[in-house]
Amino acid sequence: MSETLSLSSEDLAFLGPYIPPSGPQHSQEPNASSKLPFTSLTYACSLDGRISLAPGTRTALSGPESKSLTHYLRLHHDAILVGVGTAIADNPSLNCRYPGAALEDQPRPVIVDPRARWGRDGEVVRLVGEGKGLEPWVLVGKGVKEAAGLGSGRVEVLTLDAAMAESPHFAWRDVLKSLAMRGIRSVMIEGGASVINDLLANERDLIDAVIVTVAPTWLGEGAVAASPAKSVAAMTDVKWRQFGADAVVCGRLPK
Amino acid sequence: MSETLSLSSEDLAFLGPYIPPSGPQHSQEPNASSKLPFTSLTYACSLDGRISLAPGTRTALSGPESKSLTHYLRLHHDAILVGVGTAIADNPSLNCRYPGAALEDQPRPVIVDPRARWGRDGEVVRLVGEGKGLEPWVLVGKGVKEAAGLGSGRVEVLTLDAAMAESPHFAWRDVLKSLAMRGIRSVMIEGGASVINDLLANERDLIDAVIVTVAPTWLGEGAVAASPAKSVAAMTDVKWRQFGADAVVCGRLPK
Ligand SMILES: NC(=O)c1ccc[n+]([C@@H]2O[C@H](COP(=O)([O-])OP(=O)(O)OC[C@H]3O[C@@H](n4cnc5c(N)ncnc54)[C@H](OP(=O)(O)O)[C@@H]3O)[C@@H](O)[C@H]2O)c1
Ligand SMILES: NC(=O)c1ccc[n+]([C@@H]2O[C@H](COP(=O)([O-])OP(=O)(O)OC[C@H]3O[C@@H](n4cnc5c(N)ncnc54)[C@H](OP(=O)(O)O)[C@@H]3O)[C@@H](O)[C@H]2O)c1
Repeated sequence: MSETLSLSSEDLAFLGPYIPPSGPQHSQEPNASSKLPFTSLTYACSLDGRISLAPGTRTALSGPESKSLTHYLRLHHDAILVGVGTAIADNPSLNCRYPGAALEDQPRPVIVDPRARWGRDGEVVRLVGEGKGLEPWVLVGKGVKEAAGLGSGRVEVLTLDAAMAESPHFAWRDVLKSLAMRGIRSVMIEGGASVINDLLANERDLIDAVIVTVAPTWLGEGAVAASPAKSVAAMTDVKWRQFGADAVVCGRLPK
Repeated sequence: MSETLSLSSEDLAFLGPYIPPSGPQHSQEPNASSKLPFTSLTYACSLDGRISLAPGTRTALSGPESKSLTHYLRLHHDAILVGVGTAIADNPSLNCRYPGAALEDQPRPVIVDPRARWGRDGEVVRLVGEGKGLEPWVLVGKGVKEAAGLGSGRVEVLTLDAAMAESPHFAWRDVLKSLAMRGIRSVMIEGGASVINDLLANERDLIDAVIVTVAPTWLGEGAVAASPAKSVAAMTDVKWRQFGADAVVCGRLPK
């Protein structure tokens, strides 16, 4: 099941402060916010802050070392969340391929899909069949009729109240709460652009750690940007480390 | 004259392979390209690849440690070049304030100003008067009439052939050649956006080293981007190092 390298002990020491606290400790924490999952925001970008060459184009950005880091992080989170744009554009696997990862180590794939646009097929579903990943959860707006009929048996549809603007919009706190209620203690949000930009601009208090891989390349001004609508002050508690030709930065968002 | 910190020996070892070879060695190199100055492209950006909050807004991005790095680099280049957009927007000093830097260590400020828009005043000129910087050279298009009358005596106007498109455009090779002919063996190009983006997209073979500081912040989608018109493949010979809360990446551009 492994396609990635093991990280060194220095790599693990670097990441230590930013990965979710392990189970029991965390769930005994008394303060209220601990009822939401520990939430990491993680993505890979170029030096010009772009995450894919064009909308709908899967773009390999990170080298093998920082890819291993992603899979190590997946091992340490209960769930991986992406927007439906990414599910459709990238056909991602959303499983953990870190050396030694077994089925019980797999994170829960979560796809935010308010209008039930995702076809519920592709890699994620194939991997369930092969015993290499968990059944994905698809978060669909309450009352969306497409939500009912579909579902391959390898996909679980969860419905959630959505605010109706141009398109249905979930409050991120509700998304995280609904995951917590189903036992998810940590979630790694991996993209895509609109999810990242919304969280950075509007929901910083929900994010416990940010881990960004920067590749020494420029995707160019036509590419998809991870760039919020308004500026975000510098992170605190910042550490950088080189992984292959990439760098990884870990930090906390200013509130 | 110093406002910055000294770098550590580890910092210097990190930068060593990317700073210009020192004088005599370099000028004896037999191959033709050595006739152009050693050219470094250096700038500071946010995680979303932005270099200032808005056009015409000077934006402090780098912390004290990476600022020291900039001044160390200035110490090791014969000239610092910026576009007139930066000269007008930022009123930059363009001198070296590394500890111990004397007047004879100062780099030559060079402003690329084909239409003679720069007012030829501000910090750069003030520092000449104070003996803290060299007289700037302003590169103006041949035949531009504003070029003649002006000049404070603290500014030297050099004229250069420009291709006439929407606005006059110098070939970067001509710019570098004209500097080499005046004894400049190394030049650090510091911006702004249109200079960086033009060089990355179209003139990679002229750039010997790239040194970018990445600050752990997001300036947002309305900010000025260092992002070329087309994508640029990953750099080679890449090294990253943390400087304060920022990271610095050094590398060579693919041709
Ligand atoms: N480099 C990386 O690390 C990385 C990682 C992931 C993805 N990507 C790239 O990102 C691109 C996709 O980005 P994207 O912006 O198109 O898609 P996306 O962010 O993955 O998904 C956006 C969609 O998800 C739904 N959504 C997001 N937030 C929501 C909320 N709060 N409430 C309700 N629905 C919400 C909306 O669906 P509806 O439109 O149906 O309302 C929205 O249009 C792809 O090119 C992919 O390659 C890169
Ligand atoms: N973070 C950083 O490291 C950093 C560093 C420097 C600047 N900046 C920011 O960058 C912004 C300024 O960028 P900018 O794009 O407006 O200005 P710029 O790149 O500094 O200057 C652009 C102007 O220089 C002239 N020029 C550039 N290349 C030329 C060529 N090959 N031939 C002839 N003329 C050429 C043109 O003048 P004409 O228009 O007269 O033709 C052009 O409009 C500012 O907001 C500044 O704060 C950031």
